[in-house]
Amino acid sequence: MNRLFANLPTTVFEVMSSLARETGAINLGQGFPDDPGPEDVRRAAADVVLNGYNQYPSMMGIPELRSAIATHYKHWQGVDLDANTEVMVTSGATEALAGAILGIVEPGDEVVLFEPMYDAYLPLVRLAGGVPKFVTLQPPHFRLTEEALAQAFSPKTKAVVFNNPLNPTATTFSDENLKLLADFCRRFDAIAISDEVWEHVVFDGRQHRPILALDGLRERSVKIGSAGKIFSLTGWKVGFVCAAPQIMKVLAKSHQFLTFTTAPNLQAAVAYGLAKDDAYFNDMRKNFARSRDRFTDGLRTLGFDVIPSQGTYFVNIDIAPLGETDDVAFCRRLVMEHGVAAIPVSAFYAEGAVKNVVRFCFAKKDSTLDAGLERLARAV
Amino acid sequence: MNRLFANLPTTVFEVMSSLARETGAINLGQGFPDDPGPEDVRRAAADVVLNGYNQYPSMMGIPELRSAIATHYKHWQGVDLDANTEVMVTSGATEALAGAILGIVEPGDEVVLFEPMYDAYLPLVRLAGGVPKFVTLQPPHFRLTEEALAQAFSPKTKAVVFNNPLNPTATTFSDENLKLLADFCRRFDAIAISDEVWEHVVFDGRQHRPILALDGLRERSVKIGSAGKIFSLTGWKVGFVCAAPQIMKVLAKSHQFLTFTTAPNLQAAVAYGLAKDDAYFNDMRKNFARSRDRFTDGLRTLGFDVIPSQGTYFVNIDIAPLGETDDVAFCRRLVMEHGVAAIPVSAFYAEGAVKNVVRFCFAKKDSTLDAGLERLARAV
Ligand SMILES: CSCCC(=O)C(=O)O
Ligand SMILES: CSCCC(=O)C(=O)O
Repeated sequence: MNRLFANLPTTVFEVMSSLARETGAINLGQGFPDDPGPEDVRRAAADVVLNGYNQYPSMMGIPELRSAIATHYKHWQGVDLDANTEVMVTSGATEALAGAILGIVEPGDEVVLFEPMYDAYLPLVRLAGGVPKFVTLQPPHFRLTEEALAQAFSPKTKAVVFNNPLNPTATTFSDENLKLLADFCRRFDAIAISDEVWEHVVFDGRQHRPILALDGLRERSVKIGSAGKIFSLTGWKVGFVCAAPQIMKVLAKSHQFLTFTTAPNLQAAVAYGLAKDDAYFNDMRKNFARSRDRFTDGLRTLGFDVIPSQGTYFVNIDIAPLGETDDVAFCRRLVMEHGVAAIPVSAFYAEGAVKNVVRFCFAKKDSTLDAGLERLARAV
Repeated sequence: MNRLFANLPTTVFEVMSSLARETGAINLGQGFPDDPGPEDVRRAAADVVLNGYNQYPSMMGIPELRSAIATHYKHWQGVDLDANTEVMVTSGATEALAGAILGIVEPGDEVVLFEPMYDAYLPLVRLAGGVPKFVTLQPPHFRLTEEALAQAFSPKTKAVVFNNPLNPTATTFSDENLKLLADFCRRFDAIAISDEVWEHVVFDGRQHRPILALDGLRERSVKIGSAGKIFSLTGWKVGFVCAAPQIMKVLAKSHQFLTFTTAPNLQAAVAYGLAKDDAYFNDMRKNFARSRDRFTDGLRTLGFDVIPSQGTYFVNIDIAPLGETDDVAFCRRLVMEHGVAAIPVSAFYAEGAVKNVVRFCFAKKDSTLDAGLERLARAV
């Protein structure tokens, strides 16, 4: 067996969700809403399953969805995309990431990674034979700095894997920071693989700035999006990749041999959903922000030290003030003794992990959040 | 960009289907039925989309589907599988293949491949850093021989990628041949990655013999199946992997980072479908066999030299008697001038390709087949 995989642990999201299922804990770990998702979008999927086409769609995605993605991003982010040559549909953002990393990185290439990072990035870089170069972002702001980037980039840098808004920190990068990243990518002729699955889930009037809008990055970036995150239908596994034609041509080939294509009924429903009016997306954000506030207030009232959330489904707490020095042990106690599943943020580090931050998913009904808080009260 | 992918052509299935869409040709190329698929199975998927759970399911697949797979294979193929440790759901058989090859093969490992072969195998072996060792199967029977296997296997052999029933030849391997393969796998301590997506589509009373039933292969095989092929719903992209626990543990890790999971509504519908009674599966086979016969007879009447089909959705013709020496040119003419898309079988070879065989998909309505034959009449 391939030792790269044989030596990997099961992803912390699955571990915590399994524990939650087994123990009946309230699951505030893995990022999924307990809302069933928009009924009209689900109805659109059901309609195609019953009355539409259920055979292999075009490998790049159904034309309706590819143009809906282009139109959506033009409207929301001001990016011009040619649906025919710059947009591809994948079986979730995970496949999009795998395809981008495997399609771009060759053995020996250096790849810049920012810690904390989503746990799929590093194994995929290693699978491609890439050499990871880590930049550790410092709390509480998790900013890029010129010094750190200068240490990580080199003439051997092939790509950087970037995540904005950033999971698990629930922060977004400033315009200055994005400009800095773009400067380095241009200077070192590197491709930015940008995981933007949380692009729509930003709060307090923030506007997501896509990688493709940065100076000089239009031709050297891969933007990854997720219908599951946009529509609170995380199980659907419909992802998007946007990139300039010369990059997309190669990503199409890795996609061809990873999943080839994605269920056409779900694709059609996502195409329908992306065309919803502004009010839908604004309301979605407003509702998540309301949940964030309710849960943040509750945590603060209980005496937890909350690190504010600017986006994503997540909010973090600092457990150092509680005298806790091991986030994994703390989370294990939370789920086993107190019936609440959360995510230890050390799982997002390959080296030099912080051990004092714990992530909660607040994308839940009020009653779920309140029940969670009630149980957390016993853990303080 | 990764040159491995940059230098690959688009898969012939997509090329031909695109040409068919553009030219309005009758598409007898890519393997998909024009039947919409069983209505009750589609209804089961619609029901979950509307009323069920649409968030991340368990990474290994929903429990109902995993036990339905185990029960189904026990009933049809006599294999005992533990649903909890030996069964995993993937986003189609393509992901299952990618995950198995990437999960098992390490750089420098030798992998035995049989030509003709499905076009995903070789790029995936190369991506894993594996060294392909080809065995060319000879028409008309495409049998394994002791001599050929002895040349291909070595102490460095890590795995063999096997496909039974075999696409594109539409042949099945004999019990003696399966025994020979098992002998070599045992002798050289190799893992058999067995693509059995056509297991249910075998004709004339044949019984599919799964890799896991072969002497000594239970602990050293990966069996790959496809709900899309079983239920004529090729767009659904729900695949199955069955393997002994120690292999499955590693395959779970590659799956974790390729797609992570698969839409729960489609999974639930497949679980429902796998439990259908014997009559359903027997009728399915009978209907495909009837289409095969209708199309085979039609081709013969037109004077084509048909190579009999024992399984799959496919039947091949030998174009040498027509004076044709280039299957690609022939297929191009067929689609552009005569309005019928087919697959040139040379696309299934890395080296020493036969150039005189063309594959047709007969999994179509009578009227589609008849219209195809009418157009083919003009091509003789
Ligand atoms: C694919 S499971 C992880 C979901 C997620 O984005 C998270 O919880 O961080
Ligand atoms: C994934 S497209 C190929 C479908 C198929 O199995 C075939 O046509 O051979």
